Amino acid sequence: MAKPTSTASAPLKDELDIVIPTIRNLDFLEMWRPYFQPYHLIIIQDGDPSKTIRVPDGFDYELYNRDDVNRVMGPKANIISFKDSACRCFGFLVSKKKYILTIDDDCFVAEDPSGKEINAMAQHITNMLTPSTPFFFNTLYDPFREGADFVRGYPFSLREGVPTAISHGLWLNIPDYDAPTQLVKPLERNTRYVDAVMTIPKGTLFPMCGMNLCFDRELIGPAMYFGLMGDGQPIGRYDDMWCGWCAKVVCDHLGLGVKTGLPYIWHSKASNPFVNLKKEYKGVFWQEEMIPFFQSVVLPKTCTSPQKCYLELAKQVKEKLGHIDPYFQKLADAMVTWIEVWDELNPPPGTALPNGVSAKM
Amino acid sequence: MAKPTSTASAPLKDELDIVIPTIRNLDFLEMWRPYFQPYHLIIIQDGDPSKTIRVPDGFDYELYNRDDVNRVMGPKANIISFKDSACRCFGFLVSKKKYILTIDDDCFVAEDPSGKEINAMAQHITNMLTPSTPFFFNTLYDPFREGADFVRGYPFSLREGVPTAISHGLWLNIPDYDAPTQLVKPLERNTRYVDAVMTIPKGTLFPMCGMNLCFDRELIGPAMYFGLMGDGQPIGRYDDMWCGWCAKVVCDHLGLGVKTGLPYIWHSKASNPFVNLKKEYKGVFWQEEMIPFFQSVVLPKTCTSPQKCYLELAKQVKEKLGHIDPYFQKLADAMVTWIEVWDELNPPPGTALPNGVSAKM
Repeated sequence: MAKPTSTASAPLKDELDIVIPTIRNLDFLEMWRPYFQPYHLIIIQDGDPSKTIRVPDGFDYELYNRDDVNRVMGPKANIISFKDSACRCFGFLVSKKKYILTIDDDCFVAEDPSGKEINAMAQHITNMLTPSTPFFFNTLYDPFREGADFVRGYPFSLREGVPTAISHGLWLNIPDYDAPTQLVKPLERNTRYVDAVMTIPKGTLFPMCGMNLCFDRELIGPAMYFGLMGDGQPIGRYDDMWCGWCAKVVCDHLGLGVKTGLPYIWHSKASNPFVNLKKEYKGVFWQEEMIPFFQSVVLPKTCTSPQKCYLELAKQVKEKLGHIDPYFQKLADAMVTWIEVWDELNPPPGTALPNGVSAKM
Repeated sequence: MAKPTSTASAPLKDELDIVIPTIRNLDFLEMWRPYFQPYHLIIIQDGDPSKTIRVPDGFDYELYNRDDVNRVMGPKANIISFKDSACRCFGFLVSKKKYILTIDDDCFVAEDPSGKEINAMAQHITNMLTPSTPFFFNTLYDPFREGADFVRGYPFSLREGVPTAISHGLWLNIPDYDAPTQLVKPLERNTRYVDAVMTIPKGTLFPMCGMNLCFDRELIGPAMYFGLMGDGQPIGRYDDMWCGWCAKVVCDHLGLGVKTGLPYIWHSKASNPFVNLKKEYKGVFWQEEMIPFFQSVVLPKTCTSPQKCYLELAKQVKEKLGHIDPYFQKLADAMVTWIEVWDELNPPPGTALPNGVSAKM
């Protein structure tokens, strides 16, 4: 495992892991080298575990393939999706850091309108380290940004904000469209750079994309499960969506903030819309019941931690979505297992870790 | 009254009035001539009615001074603020058009980052004529804009959107700050052009500024009262805020949309922060009770029109804010009177108008 060559000016270097799910050699990291090299990478190798994945020299990383997932989790490994980028959440489990940045391996460094490279890491960290404002909309967007502030009429008692749990970044070039939209607009590219970060208001759901995402493991990690997708499951491409709806509901309940907007990354490849339609097909229908569920879910006051919130949510998923398809029963069970594993692998400080987790670190 | 020299390419020319509150000659209109000249202006002259206000040649306008307001409204004229730009709402009452664009006389044509003049009229009209999406957040902002769409995970049943009732535009140069922020940051200027329009989610309040605003009179006009401000009132600079909170609650109840973002105007002059502090002083305290009120207000299902909603809101203002200060009792009464006058001056089609309203048209 190589050591980074330089760690100068790398904020939160010892408090942030970069999680990358992949099935291929990580040549895309070359472009990210100036930004990512000081940080520790957790690579989740999806698919065939006998394949060797090349990581460019000079990066500090640990890599888990399916055999490793099975070894660490034993029979509970079946809650980690296989042949789907939802497997990334295994990296959230085994990280020991406060912050996670996760990115897809077809995402590259984007440029702002002036042609300058965008330091997505720095922007995500800025987003995480400044408060969110979920209780009232600020028309000049992020009030904590240089050159901006709260506008006239913004209640003074709300200007302290709340801790930020999630920073959701966007994508230039290939927009994150569903299969029907991909089919209808095969040539559409996102060329609009919107120079804004904003808090998604309390009570409002959003489509969280896992491509370019940062979050605070301590605040919201236990709610960042990407569900059951891919091999053997009836649905795909709803992993990050499911996670986002769960996490937003938990953030709203716990008084935590979710931001979206900057930073942009350059999304290089459109996935196959026909394959995507197959994966999304059931989700298109199920979503119409899932969204009203998440819009109306209420967590009791006794849910004072992300774990408690998530277990309560699992219970309600089983009760209120279980009738749609047996899949939701299984998903609710997996959510409970996720919390069990989370608590095993992330015991309170001073407790010994179970065997095997840090074997490859 | 001069006729416009050209009406080519003026969308909604016969369906939109421009309302301008002022105390000075309207030289600022020269810069707006290419955009505003095809439209009808309603000018509300605030302050001394004996003063003559010069309007540049070639504009089609009607002008109301305080004597006119008194003549049209009789004893009910006391609900129209004096010596405060809140008087603009008189123009909303007497307009006969479907849409209102209202703008302050210290606002000029802004430029986008490429140096091109921004046609605020065209952008407001685009905002009004495309649906809003208040029930779910779209991370690529306005999905109806060229080059954008709904992203993966956006429920298909919500993509039709809802009618847009309000388009709230922003300001380059002088930001719309309250007195404390003005005092603390006297030199701050807004130079960030954020190339986005978005729907403010249902259930979320925002600080609506009256400087650069467009709305649909038929859908939301009766809720666009700017309250009791200025001369003889204990508070100022909360006129547009009050209106915005009322209107947002009514829009949320009626399933109408509110957008914010583009277009920008160039706001030329910072008002005096010391004078502003005096006006805002009580509002700073009162607002801390007003916001929780508006955040929790529920309108019954029987409120099926903006009028009914607004009367119910007036009732609840009296009940729930009346204890703060007698001002709120008076304001609640004024809200009821506003609806009475609205219905008098805007009778159902086929009914005769009361005398005097169109005397100057």
